[in-house]
Amino acid sequence: MKDYKGTLFFQNKPCIFETFSIVGPKEKESKLGKLYDMGLDDDKFSESTYEKAECKMLTTAVNKVIKKAKLKEDEIDLIISGDLLNQIISANFMARDFNIPFLGVYSACSTITESLLLGATFVDAKNFNNVICAAGSHYATAERQYRYPLELGAIRPPQSQWTTTGAGAYVVKPYLKGYPVITSATIGKVTDFGVTDANNMGAAMAPAAASTLKNHFLATKTSPEDYDLILTGDLGALGSRLLKHLMNKSGYDIYNHVDSGELIYNLDEEDFQGGSGAGCGTVVMASYIYPKIKNGEFKKVLFAATGALLSTVSTQQGESIPSISHAICLENNND
Amino acid sequence: MKDYKGTLFFQNKPCIFETFSIVGPKEKESKLGKLYDMGLDDDKFSESTYEKAECKMLTTAVNKVIKKAKLKEDEIDLIISGDLLNQIISANFMARDFNIPFLGVYSACSTITESLLLGATFVDAKNFNNVICAAGSHYATAERQYRYPLELGAIRPPQSQWTTTGAGAYVVKPYLKGYPVITSATIGKVTDFGVTDANNMGAAMAPAAASTLKNHFLATKTSPEDYDLILTGDLGALGSRLLKHLMNKSGYDIYNHVDSGELIYNLDEEDFQGGSGAGCGTVVMASYIYPKIKNGEFKKVLFAATGALLSTVSTQQGESIPSISHAICLENNND
Repeated sequence: MKDYKGTLFFQNKPCIFETFSIVGPKEKESKLGKLYDMGLDDDKFSESTYEKAECKMLTTAVNKVIKKAKLKEDEIDLIISGDLLNQIISANFMARDFNIPFLGVYSACSTITESLLLGATFVDAKNFNNVICAAGSHYATAERQYRYPLELGAIRPPQSQWTTTGAGAYVVKPYLKGYPVITSATIGKVTDFGVTDANNMGAAMAPAAASTLKNHFLATKTSPEDYDLILTGDLGALGSRLLKHLMNKSGYDIYNHVDSGELIYNLDEEDFQGGSGAGCGTVVMASYIYPKIKNGEFKKVLFAATGALLSTVSTQQGESIPSISHAICLENNND
Repeated sequence: MKDYKGTLFFQNKPCIFETFSIVGPKEKESKLGKLYDMGLDDDKFSESTYEKAECKMLTTAVNKVIKKAKLKEDEIDLIISGDLLNQIISANFMARDFNIPFLGVYSACSTITESLLLGATFVDAKNFNNVICAAGSHYATAERQYRYPLELGAIRPPQSQWTTTGAGAYVVKPYLKGYPVITSATIGKVTDFGVTDANNMGAAMAPAAASTLKNHFLATKTSPEDYDLILTGDLGALGSRLLKHLMNKSGYDIYNHVDSGELIYNLDEEDFQGGSGAGCGTVVMASYIYPKIKNGEFKKVLFAATGALLSTVSTQQGESIPSISHAICLENNND
């Protein structure tokens, strides 16, 4: 049995033509703060609720990436998006504001790579010319949906991560010289190692990332040293260490691995393991890594976003936390 | 501006090779009861909660369609699935049971057509050979998540529909003579006519169905009389009437339209407008309509599943109910 199925090879090399990122106040003040296209001082974004603010960030990212790419709304063929909220309301209500066909996806914090691999599939098959892929999250909405209302002042345990307040949007287009191309992608399998702690998502997600990285290496006949960077999102410090351990046990030394959750914040006690959330890998890739692929600093990057597929209902019914990771391979295209 | 974008034309005509449907006790006793592959007498399916029962139905449908198609698990390249529950836990926990790559989608009750159009895209582009597309819903889990716990005994208003307890799975394969082919599909736009009544989803969804049908007719240069049947799911009686009215205002007489929500139940006072839910159109197509396309009774069917993108959070925050509809065109392939 070929165990490494699920890999897509894009013959026509669709490219990521443009990206836009918007983040909350904490992210704006952190290490990568100056790199984002837009940073908010008010994490409610002048809205009455955090959920409306999350939706507005996603809508802003989509609107702004269209402008930044010098496109018009009627030139966009499709939006693919998702988020962490029940019934992906941020993405659905965002899509309501555009007269553009829409596909909603749910893959928790691996939403951005699921969106991008679907966008690349449509563009590679010449179905569409301009596809927007977007994802986002908000600290306040995620905390109250998955854990405790902020007003409760619950103590955060040391294994916890901080959900990123941020959203990003990407324009996927047919091959254009000079723009990073998506050459392949690996669709993940749902894995479950029995982790039940909703605060320890890094541990829940590390096996999913390991499964997808191994499958990708096997299917593409590559190994870690073929990549300048292996970016995961959003395992945090502990999850990243677990991933290195799991890969090592399988014979892979991912010395060039870094996690977007580790990159996004200053070393801050409140974060403990770093960042997480559907927005985390999304904005780190859009604003920090993508430009480095475009300018040739990185020739080849594997981006494996990771998602913990938990729900309060499944947790209350005694279930563990299954996880998934979808990976895309991005390559510089200046030569 | 070309307003009817979002239509996919499948050059290689992927086919639906096999389907499997499983329903709850009420559906088993209703009009189409004898047509389903499997009917439960116990709507908890020997599980401790309705959520676990819903997941087990979806898992059963996927397992059984693999067997019915005489395939093995390792021959399946991809599962695409979603459901109505928060974080699509039924689909995610179903996928945990298979060693198969998985893409989670969320499009409320239009999940099955989103899944099928994505499956057809992958097969048409020769990325994959065997893709399973699946969706399901459960009356008890949907009621307590979207409206009231059953134990409360809330009175159902006359505009309400009954969420179908049922799940279906389809195998999409490359063209094979004798099997219904997917020739085109139209990805919907999110529409919102300002309906705020969570019991009146037919009214919320009818404009989305009208938008998608019109875009499909324009893009494919067809009109209603080119189809033997235009099946929507799950508008119910009132929503179906509203759709006919909206189409009529746009110059289309959809005399050959029927809604899966109207077909699924006996004329039963408790149902009021008929059925709804991600499982409704899924099982009606799988067990009632698909065989008629296969045997040539229907030559060409347009299947537009409809989804109400509401959430208790958005409703509590005063939002209306945006909706979406994705359509696929199925054609007999015996000539």
